[in-house]
Amino acid sequence: MSVSVAHLGPPGTYAEAAALAYAQTLAKETGSQPLLYPYPSIAQTLHAVAQGQAHLAVVPMENSIEGSVGVTLDTLWQLDTLQIQQALVLPIRHALLSRASSLEAIQTVYSHPQALAQCQGWLEKVMPSVQLVPTNSTTEPLQYLDKDYTAGVITSQRAAQLYNLPILASDISDYPDNSTQFWVLGKQPSAGGSHTSLAFSLPANVPGALVNPIQVFATRGINMSRIESRPKKRSLGQYLFFIDIEADVRDASVQAALAEFSAHTKILKIFGSYSVLAIDSPQVCQS
Amino acid sequence: MSVSVAHLGPPGTYAEAAALAYAQTLAKETGSQPLLYPYPSIAQTLHAVAQGQAHLAVVPMENSIEGSVGVTLDTLWQLDTLQIQQALVLPIRHALLSRASSLEAIQTVYSHPQALAQCQGWLEKVMPSVQLVPTNSTTEPLQYLDKDYTAGVITSQRAAQLYNLPILASDISDYPDNSTQFWVLGKQPSAGGSHTSLAFSLPANVPGALVNPIQVFATRGINMSRIESRPKKRSLGQYLFFIDIEADVRDASVQAALAEFSAHTKILKIFGSYSVLAIDSPQVCQS
Repeated sequence: MSVSVAHLGPPGTYAEAAALAYAQTLAKETGSQPLLYPYPSIAQTLHAVAQGQAHLAVVPMENSIEGSVGVTLDTLWQLDTLQIQQALVLPIRHALLSRASSLEAIQTVYSHPQALAQCQGWLEKVMPSVQLVPTNSTTEPLQYLDKDYTAGVITSQRAAQLYNLPILASDISDYPDNSTQFWVLGKQPSAGGSHTSLAFSLPANVPGALVNPIQVFATRGINMSRIESRPKKRSLGQYLFFIDIEADVRDASVQAALAEFSAHTKILKIFGSYSVLAIDSPQVCQS
Repeated sequence: MSVSVAHLGPPGTYAEAAALAYAQTLAKETGSQPLLYPYPSIAQTLHAVAQGQAHLAVVPMENSIEGSVGVTLDTLWQLDTLQIQQALVLPIRHALLSRASSLEAIQTVYSHPQALAQCQGWLEKVMPSVQLVPTNSTTEPLQYLDKDYTAGVITSQRAAQLYNLPILASDISDYPDNSTQFWVLGKQPSAGGSHTSLAFSLPANVPGALVNPIQVFATRGINMSRIESRPKKRSLGQYLFFIDIEADVRDASVQAALAEFSAHTKILKIFGSYSVLAIDSPQVCQS
């Protein structure tokens, strides 16, 4: 049976590019080609794996410009059944696609809010009076381009090839090193690796409540590469914390650190240890 | 001259409700009614004050369900000229507005992505097959309702009264205590108060780099009520940190703590001390 991989669709999204790149490495390892299944939202992608509709989910967890993807972290905490199998880092290269004769003819630009935000400076400089319209993904609005020649979409170069649409401007992201980290999530235990992700709540909102747990890692020389707070959703000022450490839970010393760490937390969830893989968008051959 | 207050528009947004409530307290203090100016984005609202087009900006900084508003924190760090005058906490009560005869007749629901996310559970339960369309604000899509009787918009009850539109369902937020904190920002120095907000970068990505500064507050018994990381936007894994402490920079002991704190940071920006005011949406009288 082929491995099934769920991702945010339609085809041509960055999530699909990450899923495709991961599927290629899986195919090399197993000799069997995984099947990709697009879902309309990140939450539905993760629920698909939790409910057994797919083996794995590839979801964005952080972008270098726009930061954490809240829905990924929140859903992971709620589901409580998924483990991180692999982290993937994909370079993000935005292009503006349109059937307009020139940039000046474009009146409306559609894209996912994260992509619009990542090109905000370029849009203000090059097309200051254009109307910006948020969409559910970077590929969903491509359907408008054949009907409306004053419309543009910010999406991947790969989407241009996939849907045979003209690129009016490329590399329009405001920061050259724009990249997104994805997590590959599944129900099986993590295989281990250089990074470990965990989330926790604190016993009470007292001075030092956050210092005590994170000091456990500091005193043992374990680098904390990320800390993110997410609301508990009950009232303002109550948080969960998501932390990445550069350590592997298979090490006895890390297990000892985590045991000490857990004494300072109320609820602790460990999402597994994994390695980080740099990937690139698959190329589409133009016929 | 009246005080001018910039906010995310069009009228009927929660940001306008917060700005109106703040304008009422200002009017009581000064005897003069402030003028409200709607802007199409949060970034433009903040730039308007930085460039002298308005005296004050009222912008959302955190929602109890969806967390921090990244664009507010990022723009505040970039502009480096605005100080927090006041925090406002507004209860968020979402309603579904539509000219459809019943909920079953609705095929598309429009709203700001934060509002869609805050009602996600209700939408999945009550209208599982509806198409969700993100928009720039909770009031912008109201224009569709008169043309399309299969469309619905998640917005405030106040918007229903303001635009004379039917409410098909009220209080549809997934969590009863949904509320948003807004900051009132201006160029004048903060007046002081119970809370202080600051942001900083760290000298290097070394173990304990974050522990050292926040321990300064812990050892002095100063409660840190919030910590948020934001990407530096250069590459993955490089962050700025935004912190709120329950303390007033006018206190000598807090100034001493901040002096010690700054020795552990690379860049430190203090956005001022302010009080937190609970407000409610202004009522619109129906004629």
